[in-house]
Amino acid sequence: MAESWVNHAERIGADLLLELSGPGGRRAALTRALREAVRSGRLAPGTRLPPYRSLAADLGVARNTVADAYAELVAEGWLTARQGSGTRVADRAEPPRSAARTTAGAPPRARGPRHDLRQGTPDASSFPRAAWLTSYRRALAQAPNEVFGPGDPAGRRELREALAGYLARARGVRTEPDRIVICSGFAHALRLLCGQGAGGVLSGPLAVEAYGLGFHRELLATAGVRTAPLPLDEEGARVDALARERAVLLTPAHQFPTGGPLGPARRAAVVDWARARDGVVLEDDYDGEFRYDRKPVGAVQGLDPERVVYIGSVSKSLSPALRLGWLVLPERCVGGVLAAKGDREGWASVLDQLALADFVSRGSYDRHVRRMRQRYRARRDRLVAALAERAPHIAVTGVAAGLHALLRLPPGTERSAVKAAAWRGVAVDGLSAFRHPETDMPAQDGLVVGYATPSEHAYGAALDALCEVLPPR
Amino acid sequence: MAESWVNHAERIGADLLLELSGPGGRRAALTRALREAVRSGRLAPGTRLPPYRSLAADLGVARNTVADAYAELVAEGWLTARQGSGTRVADRAEPPRSAARTTAGAPPRARGPRHDLRQGTPDASSFPRAAWLTSYRRALAQAPNEVFGPGDPAGRRELREALAGYLARARGVRTEPDRIVICSGFAHALRLLCGQGAGGVLSGPLAVEAYGLGFHRELLATAGVRTAPLPLDEEGARVDALARERAVLLTPAHQFPTGGPLGPARRAAVVDWARARDGVVLEDDYDGEFRYDRKPVGAVQGLDPERVVYIGSVSKSLSPALRLGWLVLPERCVGGVLAAKGDREGWASVLDQLALADFVSRGSYDRHVRRMRQRYRARRDRLVAALAERAPHIAVTGVAAGLHALLRLPPGTERSAVKAAAWRGVAVDGLSAFRHPETDMPAQDGLVVGYATPSEHAYGAALDALCEVLPPR
Repeated sequence: MAESWVNHAERIGADLLLELSGPGGRRAALTRALREAVRSGRLAPGTRLPPYRSLAADLGVARNTVADAYAELVAEGWLTARQGSGTRVADRAEPPRSAARTTAGAPPRARGPRHDLRQGTPDASSFPRAAWLTSYRRALAQAPNEVFGPGDPAGRRELREALAGYLARARGVRTEPDRIVICSGFAHALRLLCGQGAGGVLSGPLAVEAYGLGFHRELLATAGVRTAPLPLDEEGARVDALARERAVLLTPAHQFPTGGPLGPARRAAVVDWARARDGVVLEDDYDGEFRYDRKPVGAVQGLDPERVVYIGSVSKSLSPALRLGWLVLPERCVGGVLAAKGDREGWASVLDQLALADFVSRGSYDRHVRRMRQRYRARRDRLVAALAERAPHIAVTGVAAGLHALLRLPPGTERSAVKAAAWRGVAVDGLSAFRHPETDMPAQDGLVVGYATPSEHAYGAALDALCEVLPPR
Repeated sequence: MAESWVNHAERIGADLLLELSGPGGRRAALTRALREAVRSGRLAPGTRLPPYRSLAADLGVARNTVADAYAELVAEGWLTARQGSGTRVADRAEPPRSAARTTAGAPPRARGPRHDLRQGTPDASSFPRAAWLTSYRRALAQAPNEVFGPGDPAGRRELREALAGYLARARGVRTEPDRIVICSGFAHALRLLCGQGAGGVLSGPLAVEAYGLGFHRELLATAGVRTAPLPLDEEGARVDALARERAVLLTPAHQFPTGGPLGPARRAAVVDWARARDGVVLEDDYDGEFRYDRKPVGAVQGLDPERVVYIGSVSKSLSPALRLGWLVLPERCVGGVLAAKGDREGWASVLDQLALADFVSRGSYDRHVRRMRQRYRARRDRLVAALAERAPHIAVTGVAAGLHALLRLPPGTERSAVKAAAWRGVAVDGLSAFRHPETDMPAQDGLVVGYATPSEHAYGAALDALCEVLPPR
């Protein structure tokens, strides 16, 4: 079917900003403006110029004026015209750039280590692309028009409803959609709770586990929140040591990075403490889905939804690339968190929110989590088996759940082990990197081994390399 | 083809957190735990329970134990079992909830006004769903695995490259991908520039236009940045009135909300000022794509990329639902903005970033902008024609570009006009809502009419209603 000119122009029409000024007629001015745009590099080599008619209409000049200007610049070598591919900017040497600039913004992990055993990210090769696309397509097709207008700062209701059901069923969270606020991940959640957010729960110092993520501590410090370390033992954080603080940040399902769950008595005790002191527990359920033994570890939030802020995300279960997380809030905190979030900023892509709502409510999320749980469990088993065979003197702990294990090292060997690993191309974190600088706990030597990051085929080689850098008996 | 049991369990497997404890055997404990989960509302009516085999494996009990527990609860009426749809939680009265909670989180515009003529949002019914899905699908299919791992805080390079080309061609912006930082919209950009960001450019007070968005001023005030109003005249902001400030926020392409472009002499003057004072210009190019006359108004940034921070987003051109924007930065500001953004937070969905990169580089963005430009121009023409016929005494200004117009009202009539509009179900902002509280400029009466928000079929009625509430001659 013959395509009409209008449709054609519409199809390949493109905007081109040109200022026609200076001496001479319109044609001379247009030629000059185009030449300058190419010479300055504003129009990159290969850029397709708009069709004559389209540019002529935009500029209010005759079509022939544009045709003449293009022809002149083709003759001068600035442009090329080829049948069927339109008029384009000619390939020529680009303007020189400083070496510093061309590398400045390169992705930080573009040339990663040969073996990446750092904790914190899921297996990037396992993202469920087909199932996700199905959900995204369905969400986009079914979305009412208002989706594309201004959004609710709490996030899409569809997603909050799906999460309320999922978290109740799978994590023992007791809530309703109106208590859930969508955010873009754990760090964003923490930011929202600082300052005036959440009814001022973080207006004083925050107790944190003596071992934890440094970037959480830094984020809190930047926001003016002082952190006070709580010692850890086999039952998890020593919540009996809570002093004057009125807020505590815990990883009850799987202490990060030492790996044990918070003991049942401690769970009850911390909720009692919060009730007695009018305090609040921030529950970081960063990998609660990935539990490999049969003892269920539900969320502390279920014990008292008015005393616990539950924080989760898809960063470990699906991918950090989606930038989707959630806060489950006590009623008194909802207004403050929404105010901190701001009316105009939804922060998380609304289409991704709708896709996730579909993904969760159709069971695709459960299926993906179960598949990944099997895969990670197998990786954990391989890690444990490799160590039992090749380094039986190294104790492995924290392996009942999650995407990482803690290898206990003989005193004084951690630094050299991390260095030796780096030499062998193995990126792995030492335990001391997670130690709160103010804790009284004696320093312990260890390696925090993330076993989710390598791709499936590279995992065996990564384990071999790891075993070779462990300190001898 | 017969589906194996394993595949079936995998397909409908779902996580269910249950704690088996208390007196009696495993079956009694499981029955009790399930009953309690249903009674407390943790498992909502209609929730499908996992298949026997799947739950039995999870809990480490015999399959018959699960089957017996399900059967007992079906008999008690807590669960229902139907051939082909598995075992589900029975429908029954949900636990009562307070009325306050069930409405608290409803979307703010869920019951919007009958006629929405507020500025600030594009026509939500025009989102290019099919073209966007094509780009999203392609981006998802072509994405390398590392996309699903930790991201670059600057944003995906593919998008920064596409934007560098597009902004150069269409907006006269001179930059390169390493100077672009992706964010989630204008407000996020402004936040990133506050505090230590951008080499401290906002460490002192910020000059702003005497009329502008109140929520920008509030956001800045919250971040500790004082704003000082610059008077406006026919040429735009009086940049000659810049005093001790070392930073100024402008809307050069289309002053918001009064609607004129910043005059050529002023554009040169503000860049000269920035050079002389070591200052910086923040250029808010919020609707630069939508220009209806033929006089091009490029970005001020092109005059001096080292003195201007250029800020844009897709919030007007596509939809605020995507939460995608960008900063084009002077070299000295890149490090500070990236530090403010934080290593771990990408903020904007990486998949949406890749989809937008595809959308821009394949020309879909140009096509959409051109289509919308025609549509909005037609709406503007209808507005101007309606006013010329029915309220010729009301001057309309600022209509050469953008998605809104300014209607100048006789002195003292704005308040009653806004009230009368509200009575008629017309949401429209008075000009005074945008006035900086500290400006010396005499207050002017006006209405800021956004003509993009109503859907196409509702626009005529909205115009009729508007004309009826305008003050008489």
